[in-house]
Amino acid sequence: MPTASPSVADRTEAELISIIQTHTSYSADCVVVGIGDDAAVVEPARNRLEVLTVDALVEGIHFDRRFTPPEAIGHRALAVNLSDLAAMGAEPRHALLSLALPATLPLEEFDRLLASFGQLARRYRLPLIGGNLTRTPGPLVVDVTVSGTVRRRRALLRSGARPGDEVYVSGRVGSAAAGLALLRAGETDQTLTSCVERYLWPEPRVRLGLLLGRNNAATACMDLSDGLADAATHVSRSSGVGMIIDAAAIPIEAAATARLARDDRDPLTAALTAGDDYELLFTVRPRLRNRLRTVLRQTDTTITRIGVCTTGPGVLLNRGDRSDPMPSGFTHFHR
Amino acid sequence: MPTASPSVADRTEAELISIIQTHTSYSADCVVVGIGDDAAVVEPARNRLEVLTVDALVEGIHFDRRFTPPEAIGHRALAVNLSDLAAMGAEPRHALLSLALPATLPLEEFDRLLASFGQLARRYRLPLIGGNLTRTPGPLVVDVTVSGTVRRRRALLRSGARPGDEVYVSGRVGSAAAGLALLRAGETDQTLTSCVERYLWPEPRVRLGLLLGRNNAATACMDLSDGLADAATHVSRSSGVGMIIDAAAIPIEAAATARLARDDRDPLTAALTAGDDYELLFTVRPRLRNRLRTVLRQTDTTITRIGVCTTGPGVLLNRGDRSDPMPSGFTHFHR
Repeated sequence: MPTASPSVADRTEAELISIIQTHTSYSADCVVVGIGDDAAVVEPARNRLEVLTVDALVEGIHFDRRFTPPEAIGHRALAVNLSDLAAMGAEPRHALLSLALPATLPLEEFDRLLASFGQLARRYRLPLIGGNLTRTPGPLVVDVTVSGTVRRRRALLRSGARPGDEVYVSGRVGSAAAGLALLRAGETDQTLTSCVERYLWPEPRVRLGLLLGRNNAATACMDLSDGLADAATHVSRSSGVGMIIDAAAIPIEAAATARLARDDRDPLTAALTAGDDYELLFTVRPRLRNRLRTVLRQTDTTITRIGVCTTGPGVLLNRGDRSDPMPSGFTHFHR
Repeated sequence: MPTASPSVADRTEAELISIIQTHTSYSADCVVVGIGDDAAVVEPARNRLEVLTVDALVEGIHFDRRFTPPEAIGHRALAVNLSDLAAMGAEPRHALLSLALPATLPLEEFDRLLASFGQLARRYRLPLIGGNLTRTPGPLVVDVTVSGTVRRRRALLRSGARPGDEVYVSGRVGSAAAGLALLRAGETDQTLTSCVERYLWPEPRVRLGLLLGRNNAATACMDLSDGLADAATHVSRSSGVGMIIDAAAIPIEAAATARLARDDRDPLTAALTAGDDYELLFTVRPRLRNRLRTVLRQTDTTITRIGVCTTGPGVLLNRGDRSDPMPSGFTHFHR
């Protein structure tokens, strides 16, 4: 008779913590006391401000274990937080991980999730300094707190855009949404592999954010975790400006457009309102465009000018023949 | 026809955040950017180390909404984290709150939970600098990250106990377990009101922890979130010492003993292995006992000497006529 494969419920808390430590053994000078005491103790960075963010991934809301491998869950849980730091122009420093584990979660999936989390953490030299483990009668919840640092007056806020500033976005939008649609439908369209990759393995724009901040190249910045439409609306409101976004300029992969069009929606609207693109939207003062050039010389990330800030109010989407209000973004609760 | 009372699903994310801000409007000098950007920005404390901890409360594991009012959930979610800072001798500085909300959660309960969280935060002058809100198809999860500060070489660790050090515990143990038993059974025993209070409204020993650290009065410290037996075992292992704990000295309320005895278990074992007592266990070098006296002059918290550290190994419970190994503590996963 085959033995059932073990689940996390077959291990003690100490054994699970030991698995976590195996995968996140990156050590850093700033850590005075790491995992294993009531709390972690770290040396603050000198002459820097501290930047903190927390984000939770909930099974059934942010991922579906039927088509999201545990590695992608672990990667994404950290990536979405690094993306928030990127949007502030901050350098990642350390992380805390709080897990609510269903008793049925296979130990092997737990292990793969942590291995992938650890891999991304190591790439950013990020020690895991502490966390929490608990059972849950509900879905898997992966809650990550990340701390970073930024120089005084170099933090990128949402509120610094002024009329006349140009609006930029990094990478491409809508790819993750197309990838998710593909995974949900169980399709195996080879031309969409890049979209699936973008959904499963979002790449936080940490370096771009850091360079924008250090060079004082952006007047405002936000990440696209809840979509481009949402980010543009937030930056517009926080800065007290309007925006005109040029529909034709939005960088969308042809493959993504093709897949999104199949769902009987306007693919542009779908791409603008979809979450899961961890790109940056930022604004640049035209006379400081040389600072942006300095940034671009130091990174491979593509950026695209997609519009301009106005005296407002509101964000308009210019479709050539007409201007419409920007479709409203993603909200977690209202719908 | 009566209108159904609204749930959190009837509000947008922005509206829920606004409710949170109403209740946690405490502002502090250290906050450069609070709620409302991609991440929070804070000024680090000068000449201090940073102490960080995260703890999650999961409905169905850590609380039962049938007999735990939302105020108690909000209070406890922060209190358990403050207790971890207390155990390190750290001063609370700021907090992040990550909530996974079932769509059915009544808006009114959400409001009460946040009001109570905010009340405790204000008592400790703790600004809520950021957080995360998400829906969940599962139980309510309240995940709190708290940051504090401690002077160099003043952090209380689990690892500093040496043979000969005396073992102390603050307050009383087992009361919360008795209170929980009472609530679970729906009993309304007036003599147990204090136990119910202790379960619902744990008081983190922040001041005691701070004083122990500042005065260099304790050689090791840990909180009792998972019970006294668990804390003694952890301090013993981390410090590489043994312990003899005197059963007769354990401070247990008579009312708690009476209630715990009704569950057909040895009430002492029940009190030692129950979680939810947010007291501190700490060790003191006998020749430095005058430092402990200095601490006690500055706080009303009672403390009790319950044992002594030995060359070990292991933690023994001395019941007068015999010594047994300490009953094993609370674990989240194995049982």
